[in-house]
Amino acid sequence: MTEGLFISFEGVDGAGKTTQVRKLADRLRAQGRTVVTTREPGGTPIGARIRAMLLTKDYESAAMGERTEALLFAADRAQHAAETIRPAIESGAIVITDRYLDSSVAYQAGGRELGQEEIRNLSLWATNNLLPDRTYLLDIDPAVSHTRFSGPEDRMESAGDDFQIRTRREFLKLAEREPQRFRIIDATQSVDDIAAQIAADMDSLMAARN
Amino acid sequence: MTEGLFISFEGVDGAGKTTQVRKLADRLRAQGRTVVTTREPGGTPIGARIRAMLLTKDYESAAMGERTEALLFAADRAQHAAETIRPAIESGAIVITDRYLDSSVAYQAGGRELGQEEIRNLSLWATNNLLPDRTYLLDIDPAVSHTRFSGPEDRMESAGDDFQIRTRREFLKLAEREPQRFRIIDATQSVDDIAAQIAADMDSLMAARN
Repeated sequence: MTEGLFISFEGVDGAGKTTQVRKLADRLRAQGRTVVTTREPGGTPIGARIRAMLLTKDYESAAMGERTEALLFAADRAQHAAETIRPAIESGAIVITDRYLDSSVAYQAGGRELGQEEIRNLSLWATNNLLPDRTYLLDIDPAVSHTRFSGPEDRMESAGDDFQIRTRREFLKLAEREPQRFRIIDATQSVDDIAAQIAADMDSLMAARN
Repeated sequence: MTEGLFISFEGVDGAGKTTQVRKLADRLRAQGRTVVTTREPGGTPIGARIRAMLLTKDYESAAMGERTEALLFAADRAQHAAETIRPAIESGAIVITDRYLDSSVAYQAGGRELGQEEIRNLSLWATNNLLPDRTYLLDIDPAVSHTRFSGPEDRMESAGDDFQIRTRREFLKLAEREPQRFRIIDATQSVDDIAAQIAADMDSLMAARN
């Protein structure tokens, strides 16, 4: 049986993750691989309910606490890992997720005030230590990516430009800390150039596995 | 300003916690104290949404994972501590909660398969180390308490009698481990006898504070 693989895409809003997840999945399927695409938050029915809680601005209550938020993201991730990601990998599929634990570390630790190690450890506990085999960081200046974004702002996106700038910086730090897992992709390139760069890397990743 | 206090009630379903919370609150209010009564899960608007997720049996998805469940309880507790409990204590109120972190440790660690230390540490992180000044454990044989319970079973309660028996044992172990914080109350006594025992202990707790 072919060995499963776990791939994540990371980056600030508007970096083009959704498009690249689709293009990579299409290419792998054309090669005959079984591919499961998914996302966080909200990759499972339970996760979709958690995602709705995280993104709404309509609480009569006081603002959501930072620890509450971190724990809800971790709960979503725990269910996602247990229900979707692990079973698919074990069946030999390639799982591609739009955001995973690095988003929590970069957004919550970089953008808000909790410690990175705490957030990372929370996610590792949530997933029973499930890390991607490869993470593509689509790196872009938030000032550029913002102009690409057309929908109404949600609670996360409305947190402001400084927040996005700090988050980008945190993603880059994470990538530098784990060069074996991460590939930093210049997301100002054309969609096809980005896809080709990722495709070449995936080919060598899969070749190294055989 | 009078110093705030934080009191929790613990015990298996049907032990009489709700009644005793009300009776203690009435008594303290009659003494002129400001009292905030609350409960877990679901003590805040955000928590109420989390509680609904925890108690429903209506998921189309696979069963809720144990880590997901533990993280959702912790998220509820984080919000509860930050939004309700801490501000009330700081304003000088006596906060009385129907269930708190010991319930997670006893139910999730005793009843299911995660480690007690992990669950306890998760709650301590969630609440930034907020522990009750006093915890009343209403102790009763689940076979007795079951006959008191009249509503339809939810996802937790349907976990079976063995589960309740193990949970009771875990509560007792927790109480033995922290004798300064816990008071074990024989919940087979009459409602008024239980209330009197708790009232006497509260009087000495408050006297020791002055």
